[in-house]
Amino acid sequence: MNREEIERLVDSQPTVFVGSVDGEGFPNVKAMLAPRVREGLRTFWLTTNTSSMRVAQFRRNPRAALYFCDEERFLGVQLRGTMEVLEDAASRRFIWREGDTEYYPLGVDDPDYCVLRFTAETGRAYSDYHSENFETE
Amino acid sequence: MNREEIERLVDSQPTVFVGSVDGEGFPNVKAMLAPRVREGLRTFWLTTNTSSMRVAQFRRNPRAALYFCDEERFLGVQLRGTMEVLEDAASRRFIWREGDTEYYPLGVDDPDYCVLRFTAETGRAYSDYHSENFETE
Repeated sequence: MNREEIERLVDSQPTVFVGSVDGEGFPNVKAMLAPRVREGLRTFWLTTNTSSMRVAQFRRNPRAALYFCDEERFLGVQLRGTMEVLEDAASRRFIWREGDTEYYPLGVDDPDYCVLRFTAETGRAYSDYHSENFETE
Repeated sequence: MNREEIERLVDSQPTVFVGSVDGEGFPNVKAMLAPRVREGLRTFWLTTNTSSMRVAQFRRNPRAALYFCDEERFLGVQLRGTMEVLEDAASRRFIWREGDTEYYPLGVDDPDYCVLRFTAETGRAYSDYHSENFETE
């Protein structure tokens, strides 16, 4: 996959699979709604519940992976990097959307609403039974 | 989800998302073809290439996760446990299928064909915006 195909795959999926490492050193995988904002293939912004297990894991160990997958075409893109948990006013407002009060009834300052910002260090793309690394900047 | 619903989800998906931890301590996620055989929710058998990055990772660090996801219904099942890389004749034959020569031209003893056996220690199911643990035995 060239860079354009990688970005198209990333943007085409409603779901991203988020990898973390838990307190006992085991990998964890969870489907989350796709990032709301991305800057190139470097920085990705997601929302989640402050009280969630993933937030606790990333506070303890920021190492993370985002995996985007087109199952029908056997294409995959993995980004490896670090995840920050952000609760400041500017970050909250940056990716807040109107309908979010359905999930966070107290609005943009709901203490259970927080922002995850992922910064990719390395990328790897899979297609045609073959993987190759790509630059994330 | 009750146990029957969990098993139905596991059996309904063509793909499983496999979590591993690489040599630098980062989580890795990769889509693989669903396990060919499972024994309850405890033991799962998959095939892969002996030369693959996943095999190298599991030889170094056997901690693993299998994640089954129904994206449309927002259901997820994560199993956490350990992954063994098996190359013995009995394991190879146990899950070999006729068409596999397409991927492993040398047949069931092709050195690039190997078996992954996952043993689950803990399970966690996600539905209705809520997660709960379940027993894997």
